[in-house]
Amino acid sequence: MTKYIEENKDRFLSELFELLRIPSVSTDVAYQPDIKKAAAFIAHKLNEAGADKVEICPTKGNPVVYGEKIIDPSLPTVIVYGHYDVQPADPIDLWDTPPFEPTIKNDSIYARGASDDKGQMYMHVKAFESMMKNNTLACNVKFMLEGEEEIGSVNLGDFIRERKEDLKADVILISDTGMISVDTPSITVGLRGLSYMELELTGPNRDLHSGMYGGAVQNPLNAMSEVLAALKDKDGHITIPGFYDKVEILSEEERAKMAKAPFDLEAYKKALDIDKEFGEKGFSTNERTSIRPTLDINGMWGGYTGEGAKTVIPSKAYAKVSMRLVPHQSWEEISDLFTKHVESIVPDGITVKVTAHHGGTPVVIPTNSVEYQAANDAYTEAFSKEPIPVRSGGSIPIVALFKEELGLDSVMMGFGLDSDAIHSPNEKFGIFNFLKGIETIELFYKHYAKLKK
Amino acid sequence: MTKYIEENKDRFLSELFELLRIPSVSTDVAYQPDIKKAAAFIAHKLNEAGADKVEICPTKGNPVVYGEKIIDPSLPTVIVYGHYDVQPADPIDLWDTPPFEPTIKNDSIYARGASDDKGQMYMHVKAFESMMKNNTLACNVKFMLEGEEEIGSVNLGDFIRERKEDLKADVILISDTGMISVDTPSITVGLRGLSYMELELTGPNRDLHSGMYGGAVQNPLNAMSEVLAALKDKDGHITIPGFYDKVEILSEEERAKMAKAPFDLEAYKKALDIDKEFGEKGFSTNERTSIRPTLDINGMWGGYTGEGAKTVIPSKAYAKVSMRLVPHQSWEEISDLFTKHVESIVPDGITVKVTAHHGGTPVVIPTNSVEYQAANDAYTEAFSKEPIPVRSGGSIPIVALFKEELGLDSVMMGFGLDSDAIHSPNEKFGIFNFLKGIETIELFYKHYAKLKK
Repeated sequence: MTKYIEENKDRFLSELFELLRIPSVSTDVAYQPDIKKAAAFIAHKLNEAGADKVEICPTKGNPVVYGEKIIDPSLPTVIVYGHYDVQPADPIDLWDTPPFEPTIKNDSIYARGASDDKGQMYMHVKAFESMMKNNTLACNVKFMLEGEEEIGSVNLGDFIRERKEDLKADVILISDTGMISVDTPSITVGLRGLSYMELELTGPNRDLHSGMYGGAVQNPLNAMSEVLAALKDKDGHITIPGFYDKVEILSEEERAKMAKAPFDLEAYKKALDIDKEFGEKGFSTNERTSIRPTLDINGMWGGYTGEGAKTVIPSKAYAKVSMRLVPHQSWEEISDLFTKHVESIVPDGITVKVTAHHGGTPVVIPTNSVEYQAANDAYTEAFSKEPIPVRSGGSIPIVALFKEELGLDSVMMGFGLDSDAIHSPNEKFGIFNFLKGIETIELFYKHYAKLKK
Repeated sequence: MTKYIEENKDRFLSELFELLRIPSVSTDVAYQPDIKKAAAFIAHKLNEAGADKVEICPTKGNPVVYGEKIIDPSLPTVIVYGHYDVQPADPIDLWDTPPFEPTIKNDSIYARGASDDKGQMYMHVKAFESMMKNNTLACNVKFMLEGEEEIGSVNLGDFIRERKEDLKADVILISDTGMISVDTPSITVGLRGLSYMELELTGPNRDLHSGMYGGAVQNPLNAMSEVLAALKDKDGHITIPGFYDKVEILSEEERAKMAKAPFDLEAYKKALDIDKEFGEKGFSTNERTSIRPTLDINGMWGGYTGEGAKTVIPSKAYAKVSMRLVPHQSWEEISDLFTKHVESIVPDGITVKVTAHHGGTPVVIPTNSVEYQAANDAYTEAFSKEPIPVRSGGSIPIVALFKEELGLDSVMMGFGLDSDAIHSPNEKFGIFNFLKGIETIELFYKHYAKLKK
């Protein structure tokens, strides 16, 4: 750890805590004031750290916080991307400590957003401060920190198109992913895409007494079970016609290389308390979460869900279903295939309305680039161990957007761990990861400037 | 309409409104104070009407309101059964008027409990008052009005066993069912039984990020869809092994007689806004809701059900499932078959906890009895039309209990209509039905006393 980080780490943490206390949940409009509060906090910290042209840029949705430091136009320019919005905290009752009151337990920070992405995004702000204070900043830097990542970065595309000039750069640097373990650093070189759908099934025009009508009318809840169950077969294959048509098939050699990444299935199952894993037949657990697409029901509701027994046939039933996609699936096309298929299998007596939420395009990052090399060298110096390139199962839709609109590749230097429980109760981020991340990020600038010479 | 009913109908209605304003919901403990309020109201009205030994009898759960009038031990004795508890009002937002603020629209009373069962139960209190004031009461009467019908009359069995002596009688009279239409009176001679189950499926020990884990672990929501969809085949047959073993098969002659009851399938579908009805292959709509058992999902929930998109694999998924039973199925046996079957088909990686709520035994009432004849004559005189005997799809578990414990048959003189939307938003009860019911009930006492002479 550098002297500066050592001397300032307590302040770094207390600043992060201040940010974590703001419930900037983007999936629910009720938190709009907190979104603005979080944006203002970050803008303030960028100014303090020495950024120029700091601006809270309005969009049709939540603002993007921008700030830059151009030390020499001839030097390479890094765009730092991150997001200050977070997932909802529910189910709240499963949290051991309040989700928006950060708490330190066995060297980890417990709070919603600790790892995804406030903690990881803030590492970049503090790395920047450190390089400014120590005059070690070796590249120009531009911050682009948004507030809509958890709802699909719906307005970032417009922002980028409007600011193309301001966003001229050489690479995008992102910390919104994880690494294998604290002793096994890794760099994310692939991300799955996402298609997120919502279903509304309607049967009778009103809730019915299940005694009077039971057996004579189609029940939307029974119908929804049928429809959703039919989307996968017993081998975990998705049954939507055309779903796999464009899926990239990896060579045996590539799969063999992937299989080398350290993974303990027994420990994996134990950590989740499951007797058996389940996934697409013919693929390993790591393959199922990285190079293969999948379909999951994320939410389902309808009828009586209160205490006791209500004998009702509800008029409506609802579900949220998402599909993770791999190269070269298009989320628009998959959303369309999903909709057509569901409409075609919904039983008589039921009408269905299918709505597509945001989507994301899958990406793969080349490992033979100067940018990857710089990240590789930074990790190697910080961890005294070469990082492993891995494909993540998650989605960061904007990585594809950056490539399309700005022609820039992204380098995903993630410092989170699977055990961080992001999107879950008791999300956490290791203090070691936070501080080591700051150190590693500083080293990236150093190596990147050197390699670009 | 009798002169007394004519002169007092406005007061009858305003008293009923007072009762309907009490949200005596038995499925939710939050309404306990209102349960007590409703019981006290009825006890008071029984006293006013001239009942003796009026008592609010405590049970392990909600109290039973008792009251009697023994005018001559040599005369036949009628036990009036009814219930003052109601179903929850949710979904509240689908009500056009407040569920607990009764409102009159086109000659109907709109309120939770208007038809099931406060409105119908109160007809008996007012019929009793009328006969007392006019000295026309021709039988002894004992009121037994409970507060747990909507949760399966869980404590009525104990009450009856403890009060066997006080409950000596000749027949049970109940108005908690419907009739075909205001021009086609009918008497319910059959009730389906009920088995009500609750499922809790558990997958991973915490909510997971669907990007990181999607495809590699069994998702409880997907698993629940599979399990529930597997309980019925495409022909609407229930697939639980042994489910149909004891189902009573009606003769072609009986089915032909049933088919004579007036029924308009097009009007039925139009009233529910459904393009097609659905039910067990080989049976008519009326048969599906009366002589055939069925299975319906009454509620289902899990994962993220809020606004927007949350990419989560939940740890748990829940469902409420009920089965309507016919003679000679036993609800204990069916609940047991259901549990074993669900446990046997739940996929690897998921554990399931199945809990049985209250159940009810199916019943069929003989139409060749003096009791049925008295009801038949009462309707014929009141409606100038002979009533049709019908089997109802609903369940009144206590009818079987009365037969077992007291050896008494029940006469179900229901005055509700299918369109009353009981258990649904905008439940209603026709003012005509309410007043005609009081008149018909008075006539039952007259004819019953005559026939028993």
